[in-house]
Parts: sequence; C-alpha cells; structure tokens
Amino acid sequence: MSHNQLTESGRLHHFLSIEGLKRPLLTEIMDRAEQFSSISHQQVKKVPLLRGKTIVNLFFENSTRTRTTFELAAKRLSADVISLNINTSSASKGESLRDTLHNLEAMHSDMFVVRHHQSGAAEFIAQHVAPHVSVINAGDGCHAHPTQAMLDMFTIRRHKQHFPDLRVAIIGDILHSRVARSQIQALATLGVGEIRVIAPKTLLPTDCKTLGVHVYHDMNAGLKDVDVVITLRLQNERMQGALLPSSKEYYQCYGLTERKLSLAKPDAIVMHPGPINRGVEIASAVADGPQSVILEQVTHGIAVRMAIMSMTLGSQAELYEVTA
Amino acid sequence: MSHNQLTESGRLHHFLSIEGLKRPLLTEIMDRAEQFSSISHQQVKKVPLLRGKTIVNLFFENSTRTRTTFELAAKRLSADVISLNINTSSASKGESLRDTLHNLEAMHSDMFVVRHHQSGAAEFIAQHVAPHVSVINAGDGCHAHPTQAMLDMFTIRRHKQHFPDLRVAIIGDILHSRVARSQIQALATLGVGEIRVIAPKTLLPTDCKTLGVHVYHDMNAGLKDVDVVITLRLQNERMQGALLPSSKEYYQCYGLTERKLSLAKPDAIVMHPGPINRGVEIASAVADGPQSVILEQVTHGIAVRMAIMSMTLGSQAELYEVTA
Amino acid sequence: MSHNQLTESGRLHHFLSIEGLKRPLLTEIMDRAEQFSSISHQQVKKVPLLRGKTIVNLFFENSTRTRTTFELAAKRLSADVISLNINTSSASKGESLRDTLHNLEAMHSDMFVVRHHQSGAAEFIAQHVAPHVSVINAGDGCHAHPTQAMLDMFTIRRHKQHFPDLRVAIIGDILHSRVARSQIQALATLGVGEIRVIAPKTLLPTDCKTLGVHVYHDMNAGLKDVDVVITLRLQNERMQGALLPSSKEYYQCYGLTERKLSLAKPDAIVMHPGPINRGVEIASAVADGPQSVILEQVTHGIAVRMAIMSMTLGSQAELYEVTA
Repeated sequence: MSHNQLTESGRLHHFLSIEGLKRPLLTEIMDRAEQFSSISHQQVKKVPLLRGKTIVNLFFENSTRTRTTFELAAKRLSADVISLNINTSSASKGESLRDTLHNLEAMHSDMFVVRHHQSGAAEFIAQHVAPHVSVINAGDGCHAHPTQAMLDMFTIRRHKQHFPDLRVAIIGDILHSRVARSQIQALATLGVGEIRVIAPKTLLPTDCKTLGVHVYHDMNAGLKDVDVVITLRLQNERMQGALLPSSKEYYQCYGLTERKLSLAKPDAIVMHPGPINRGVEIASAVADGPQSVILEQVTHGIAVRMAIMSMTLGSQAELYEVTA
Repeated sequence: MSHNQLTESGRLHHFLSIEGLKRPLLTEIMDRAEQFSSISHQQVKKVPLLRGKTIVNLFFENSTRTRTTFELAAKRLSADVISLNINTSSASKGESLRDTLHNLEAMHSDMFVVRHHQSGAAEFIAQHVAPHVSVINAGDGCHAHPTQAMLDMFTIRRHKQHFPDLRVAIIGDILHSRVARSQIQALATLGVGEIRVIAPKTLLPTDCKTLGVHVYHDMNAGLKDVDVVITLRLQNERMQGALLPSSKEYYQCYGLTERKLSLAKPDAIVMHPGPINRGVEIASAVADGPQSVILEQVTHGIAVRMAIMSMTLGSQAELYEVTA
Repeated sequence: MSHNQLTESGRLHHFLSIEGLKRPLLTEIMDRAEQFSSISHQQVKKVPLLRGKTIVNLFFENSTRTRTTFELAAKRLSADVISLNINTSSASKGESLRDTLHNLEAMHSDMFVVRHHQSGAAEFIAQHVAPHVSVINAGDGCHAHPTQAMLDMFTIRRHKQHFPDLRVAIIGDILHSRVARSQIQALATLGVGEIRVIAPKTLLPTDCKTLGVHVYHDMNAGLKDVDVVITLRLQNERMQGALLPSSKEYYQCYGLTERKLSLAKPDAIVMHPGPINRGVEIASAVADGPQSVILEQVTHGIAVRMAIMSMTLGSQAELYEVTA
C-alpha cells in the first residue's frame, strides 16, 4: 500500500495510487471535478485557486498528451508551471535524482507531477520530498496511473450513475498496464458489481484471482451484457516479444469491433485511455461511434486533475473558494 | 478559395489565407492592430482580452521566430499558451494527426496556430476541428503566410497611407514563397496601384499573369520609381537544385544594393520577412540603412497577430473592451 | 571593467559583473532580496512588480537549474518569460546573433538573461542592445557569474552578518571558475577580512596576487579558523586534461571531508554553487551535514534574482510597491 498519501486527518497529501484510498475520498474527487468541469464552459476558464503556487512537471518518460493535460489543469488553476524533461537536465551533469529533487524543493516548489518508466518511482520521490511538497503520480512503470483511473471513474459516473449496478469489462494487456491496475482498484473501491478482464493468458498477471476480477479469454463471453467496455492500448514493444503473434491476429481475437460490441448492453459505453491504435485494439467505427466516450475522457481529464491538484495542495478554507 | 474562414455574418472565424477576404476586413485588422500597437508602449504591455483562453501552437515545422511572436501576442492578450512540437508528440506513438487534434479540442483548446511544411495543412485542420476552435495559418508549405502579409500591409500603411497611389516591387523567389503569394493577394485586395515581381524565370510561377502583377527580370527596370521594395529570403535549399547558379551570382543580379535601391523613389521603404541572408538577397548597408523598416515589421508582427487572434476568438462585445 | 552596467545616476541598468560595483549597491541588492525572501513564505508567492514585462532567457549553454531559477524568479514577479535555446533557433537558418537580438528587441522584450560558453558574451550583447533592454549575465565562459556570487553573499550575510570580521576560503578550480572570480570580487567589495583560495598550482590563475587573496595549496593550513568554506564544482572535462591526476586523488587532497572541515571554526558554514560531485570535491557527510547551507543557497537564488531583475527593470516609483 502506498505510504503516506494521506495526512493524519485523512486528507490527500500525495496522489500516488488508488490502493488504500476509501470510497468517500474517490467520491470527493469526482464531486470536486464536477465543479471544475462547469468552469470549462465559462467564458474565462480559470480560477485563482492555486495562484502563486509552483508546479513542476518531472517527466522521466516522454508523454506530450499527459504533460499537456497536467499543464492545462495547472494553468486553469492559475498556478505557475515548470516542465522539466529530466533526460536533458542536471542528470547529465552527474547529479543524483535526490539532489535534483532537493534543489527543486529549495526553489519553493509546491508540487511534483512525476512520470517515470520505473514502477515505484513516484512513491520513492514522495518518501524523500520535503513535507510542503505534494507528489502526483502521472504514471510509473507497470504500477499505477491513478489520475487516469479517476478520470475514467468520473466518465463512467457521468453516464451510468450507480456503480454497484454495473458490469465493467477491461480488454487487453492487463499484465503490463498501469492503467488497468489502477482502474481495477478504483472500480473495486467504488463497489462495482462485476469487474471482468478479457485477455490472452500471456497478457494476464498471475495474481488475477486476488484482484477480485473475473477472467475471460474469449470476447464473446466476456462482453456479454456489460455496461462499460474499457479497451487498453497495445504497446508496440509487446508485439516484438514472444507474448503476441501479430497485431492482425490480436485484432481478430481481441480487437473491439462493432459486431463484438453488439454483445454488450445496447447502452454500453466504450472507453480507451489513448492514444488509440486503430485497427489493433479497436476498430475505427467503434472508436468514432455513438457509444464511444473516448474524447469525453480527455475532457474530463482536465477537471479531474484540477480536482486532485487542488485537493492535495489546498487547505479546507481555500477549497470553499471554488464555488464562490 | 479558403473554405469557411468567415462566419455567416462575415466575421473572421479562422485565418487561413488572404484569398477571399474583402478590403474592409483587411482594414479592420489593421485598425485593430493600431490599437494593440499603442499597448506595447504602455508600462504594462498586457490586456485581459483572452484571459482563460487556451491557445495551442502546433508547429510541424520549426520556427523559433514565428512561434515566439505568436506566443508573445497570446501572452499579451493574457491567454494561456501551450507549444507543441508535433515531431516529438504522440505522432511518434503512431497516433494520427486527426486523433491528436481531436484530443487537443477535447481539452477545451480555443485556437490552433498551425505551421506546416505542406501546402493546405492549415485548411485541412480547419475543416476537421470542432466549431469552437479557431485555426490560424502560421505558414503552410508554399501556399500562404497570411499573418506575415498583414503585418507587411500594416507596415506599409504606417509609412505610405494610401494604397492606390503605390507602386510595390517584390524581389526574389516568388515561385516557392508563401509570403509573396499572400502579399500579392493582400496588395491586390487593398487596391495597390501597381504590383511588380522581379525574379529570374526559374523562380516565377507559371500563373504570374493571373495574379495581376507586372513581371520584371531586371532589377534596374523593376525598381524604377517604386514606393515599396519587398525582398524575399532565398532558401538555401533552392541553391542546391538546378534553379540557381550560386548565391554570389544571385546577389549580383537580384541582391538589393544601395546602388539598385537608388532607382526607387527616394522615400521608398525596404522590407524583408526575415531572417535575412546578408549579402545574398540584400546588402547589409540596405538592411541596416535609413530606408529599411525590417525591424518595424517584427514589432508590428505582435500587434497584427494580437488583432487577428482577438478577432477570430472574440465576440463583438469583448472587442469593445480593447479601447476601454 | 564592465561597460555601462550603471545608468548615469548610478542605478543598475545591466547586471554583467561584480567588477566595478560599489559596496552600497551590493548591499541594496541584498536588502531587496531580503524583502522578496519573505514573499516566498506567503500563501501567494507572487508580486505584480513586472506584470506585462517580457523576459527572454537566451541560453547558448544548457543549464536547467539556472534557467529554472531565473524562470521562477520572473514568474514570481509576474513577468512573461520566453526561453530560447539558441542552438535550435534561427541560428540554424544562418541568422547572425546580432540579427536575432535585434529581432527580439523589436518584439518589445525588456530583458535578456544570457548564458554563454564564451567569456564576454553578455557584455557584448549589452553593448549592442537597444537602450530599453536590460541584460543579466547568467554565466559567461570563465569570466563571471555575478547573480551566483550575490546569492552567495546573501547566504553568508544571513549567517554571519558582519563581512569585515570574516575569513572565507574558496577551494578548487579557481582558474576556470566564473563563480570563484565573481565571489572574490564580491567578497573584496564587501570588505571581507581575509579571502583565501585553496587549490593545486595547476588550477590557480597567474594573477592571484592582484586579486587580493591569500593562496594555499594545503587544506589543513588553508581551512584553519575560517568562517565560511566555499567548495567549487570540479568540471569533469578538467580531469581529462593534464591538469589533474584523478578524481580520487583530487578528493584525497582537496575534497572537503568532516575531518578537514573540523579545522575551520566550529560554526563555519559550507557552501557550493551546485550541482555537487559527491566524493569528488565534497563528502556526502559534509554536503548533507549540519554546517551545509547548500540548499539555502538555492532558495536564496530566487529572491536574489528577483531583486536584481526588479532593480534593473524598475523605476524608483515601482520599487516602493514591493513593500506595499
């Protein structure tokens, strides 16, 4: 379980993993995101909530999309943002990661948004930062991507309301997916009725049973009567190993087509964390079709990140200002 | 003709090309730029006109200068700016341009400033964006560079006032120049008395006659009695092809020297879109001389881009705030 | 001596070198930094002092740390910041440095923060900019790094108050260090009682005597009874030349260990401009020990740069607003 995400009084200080967070906190994030969501439709899409705060994007792994959403979320909260690509920073001068972090802290940074190819990196950083700094995990290795999971929950709630009534299927590379891992934890915490994973055996973790999910290897059976279909991005690098035969064959077995989707409930929604591989894990007709909420996920990503950023940094007093 | 630049009521929605725009609109851009120009001399060079708006610089072709002027224009309008170098973005993850655009739209972006090496790219993007997004063409292939043309018109008006009385000469690589193409359209729309192009045959488009310009191959004849001399940048890559013998020979024939400039009217102004190749298309003595307005063009570039950005994004109500 | 740093009335216009600046001005910088330092502890770490000003980071030499501190200082003064890596800019299109500068000026930039690998680069740029632009030297070759020196003086004053009573030792590569050069000038101007340099002969400049410093080749003698110990970063590239045997041998002779530090006064402080090479010029136990003020230096770097930026750009009228 993540160390020290919460303050003694149970408020969010870091946001590293869904694991260990209670249902009321996840609900609070979604409620708060709902408030920020309405801001996006105002003439001036900005609130002064984090004015004067310094947020540092620490990206050890390149991701324009995720960096952009965090940068926009920070700017719409009126924070100052510094984006550092750590490969080109002092690391090249032989400085250790800890020294780099301590230097950034000493500049009175208030938050580090961390993306790293190694599992546990955000946690490690959170353990070593000064008490005044909040750390947000923007994806670490195969471990967790909790802001993505929360925007997915927010998107589901927008369409389906009551979690216990839902049957949710996640399709694809569960084994290597930090997104899937965080989604499963969030769905379980929110009391979703049934969580299914659909994948070939080579792309399933060995601890599937302990995750509380139902495992399917066949799309026809797995998609039957589900309310939410979550497709995962197939990393090209997996294809080169022995785990998968070819992207064409993968598409035939596990690609989400209109025909397969018709087995789900008629009002099922289709999700994907992006960027999508059309014709690999999802057919274009489905990605762009009436049941797809993929672009809504992107939109909600800003509001959900604004919520998490303001909750980790904000005092209760400040929080009330959102609605003012 | 550019598709859909204007709203039904004839206001600017996108800014893709000078082609198809009427004289009153070009005049409105210049009048509005005049207002912003005075802001640059204030103690605080900022107006809150686009506060809370998100402007995305989408540069598929590197250009520090142009990107910087758009970024400064956006910041002086108090907008939030995100600059994306598309080569290093999700494109590398195999995402299509359309998916990238739809994602940026979903983040509630209000404007895309597009620079692309392919003619028609800005137009293509404008055809595919959501209705709430404005697209500004910051240069596409050999097609158009309309904000450059408008800052050139603004610079001419500052010095020469009445367009119909003017004789304007454009010298150099007309064939490949998006700047020249947009300038000729703007000069024609503003009713300039005589537009001349001076270039070797290999650097002239075949449709010169239809452009309504007078063609000269000789500088002595072409510069005679002109009021405005526009020199174009000679792209180094042209030199490597069969189109030109050498930069030295080009300078002898078409380089603007003090001697050649003396054939123009004594109060003729000298322009160049930058960056200049000293000793290739223009002599240093001319570029830095008393008739040069090259740096003024750069200065006016900010105000003209502020004008175009605020017109495409702004409602009539907001527009009046500029003068408040 | 630096040309033209001061206005006719003796106020800072550029900030290029400590050389030639008088003690009251250095004291004014520190007093003003003291004011900004308190802002960093406020809820909103921002003052509107430079709102609407445009500051351009012109980095010809990569330095994430220094660029970040200047960027943060500028943002906390509410200025707009543009960061240009000159290697990737118009320089690649063959434009001269002067043309690039004149273009940036024409965009109504107010300040250039310059970092360059060549000594004298900031001075050169200051001589060629328009009168309305201030230039700050963020490190030029082996010549000067005056903002670093001032943050070091500020850090010393925070701990030691009265400069004439102090004995300060600087250890390491004095010969190539722009930091050491600026520190010695600042310490001398502030009337420090004794300035010592401790280094092997190969890393000492030949003009050591004229600098007014006492030279030591032995740490035991040099550190005796000093109040302030400044360690310098050992550039790896020096190691490859004939100047030094190995980093291991260097550490044995000139690395600051707890044992050697015990020769200094018990309340001596330890400084380093960063990034540090642990186990080369300084032991980890010392860098992280109770006498180290290395991270404080980083913190003070923001306030000192805010002070220098606001003094070079500000009029007297504006300056009073800081305290308001």
